[in-house]
Amino acid sequence: MSAATYSQPEIDALWRTLRERRDMRHFLPDPLPDGLLERLVEAAHLAPSVGFMQPWRFIRITEPTLRAQIHTQVEAERRATAAALPSRNDEFLQVKIEGIRDCAEVLVAALMPQREKHLIGRRTLPEMDIASVGCAIQNMWLAARAEGIGLGWVSFFEPDALAALLGLPPGARPLAILCIGQVEAFYPRPMFADAGWGRRLPLAEVLFENRWPEGAGGTPTAY
Amino acid sequence: MSAATYSQPEIDALWRTLRERRDMRHFLPDPLPDGLLERLVEAAHLAPSVGFMQPWRFIRITEPTLRAQIHTQVEAERRATAAALPSRNDEFLQVKIEGIRDCAEVLVAALMPQREKHLIGRRTLPEMDIASVGCAIQNMWLAARAEGIGLGWVSFFEPDALAALLGLPPGARPLAILCIGQVEAFYPRPMFADAGWGRRLPLAEVLFENRWPEGAGGTPTAY
Repeated sequence: MSAATYSQPEIDALWRTLRERRDMRHFLPDPLPDGLLERLVEAAHLAPSVGFMQPWRFIRITEPTLRAQIHTQVEAERRATAAALPSRNDEFLQVKIEGIRDCAEVLVAALMPQREKHLIGRRTLPEMDIASVGCAIQNMWLAARAEGIGLGWVSFFEPDALAALLGLPPGARPLAILCIGQVEAFYPRPMFADAGWGRRLPLAEVLFENRWPEGAGGTPTAY
Repeated sequence: MSAATYSQPEIDALWRTLRERRDMRHFLPDPLPDGLLERLVEAAHLAPSVGFMQPWRFIRITEPTLRAQIHTQVEAERRATAAALPSRNDEFLQVKIEGIRDCAEVLVAALMPQREKHLIGRRTLPEMDIASVGCAIQNMWLAARAEGIGLGWVSFFEPDALAALLGLPPGARPLAILCIGQVEAFYPRPMFADAGWGRRLPLAEVLFENRWPEGAGGTPTAY
């Protein structure tokens, strides 16, 4: 394998995917193409992981009852979040945040148990396992987008309740409910941006030189 | 924007990037092409983030003294990790884990401060901010690979010490030292795999159905 740059059309294809990937919440009922789900898990599994620990595990939900129970948990947390916001509570409830009942496939992504045995690259940063799962799901997201398939990452749930529902062993922890399916169209912009819940920060606000600039803070909230 | 599948060459380009991306630790001294560093930060900034919070901040290290101090911190943690391993301690020290002194550019990626104000999608899962930074760095990694540029994510450091060195405000936390630069060749396999520190798990060990299978555990360690 050489260090040669890819062809311009290859670079452009990657950038198209980076720009057009969206967190999707509206789905068509059609099934996924044959073999696509496995390809998406393969894409995730090609991700880097700290100390090569591969901390990600995926649970495909095929029982309709289980999917309905997951939806119930998410709906409860959506309402608890709305109640916890300091303002715009009702407005938040009008933003669609998940398509669990409509999408073709639901996958739950979880951290594996016994991660404390893995010290390399996380002796002082144990949260590197979470970052690795983020990398894996981002791979899956991009692979889905390139094949015209939508993916939404839902993090509105109580992790212990979801872990109990799916029989996770002690030490494992769910991080994502992934909704995957055909879509009518991809949103042109992030849905929270379109709904007035944020704006893309200018690059100058996220890129500094040598030291943190005096007075630079976090991203403002919309509430 | 339509939901149409990309062309086969576009899909193939994405998969080539997913397969050929590597965590790099060997770099050539040559500078990056003009504008590339900014493009990589732009790729990161296109990542999804929980509640659109964009929790990532990047600090470009241009002062040689600062780079040397960062390297000293990493070297100390590399040795502390080797001492903490239950076996193979000397063998671990022979694996190259970073190229901080050789690469063209060093970026430190950090979580922004005041994240506790952001509740959407993380009331019960506060670690979603870390997952979002993982997504952002994965975007950057893939964009670098497509342009023939290597990137390595170094997580051997004491976060409080690195935060102090770079003047991070309370609540901010560094997650990555990113080494970015020209490379002679990309590794054909992950370096830890080649060095006998792990094997890629079969897909069947990371993909389950409906419930966690009885007896399924974590990834075995090599020590």
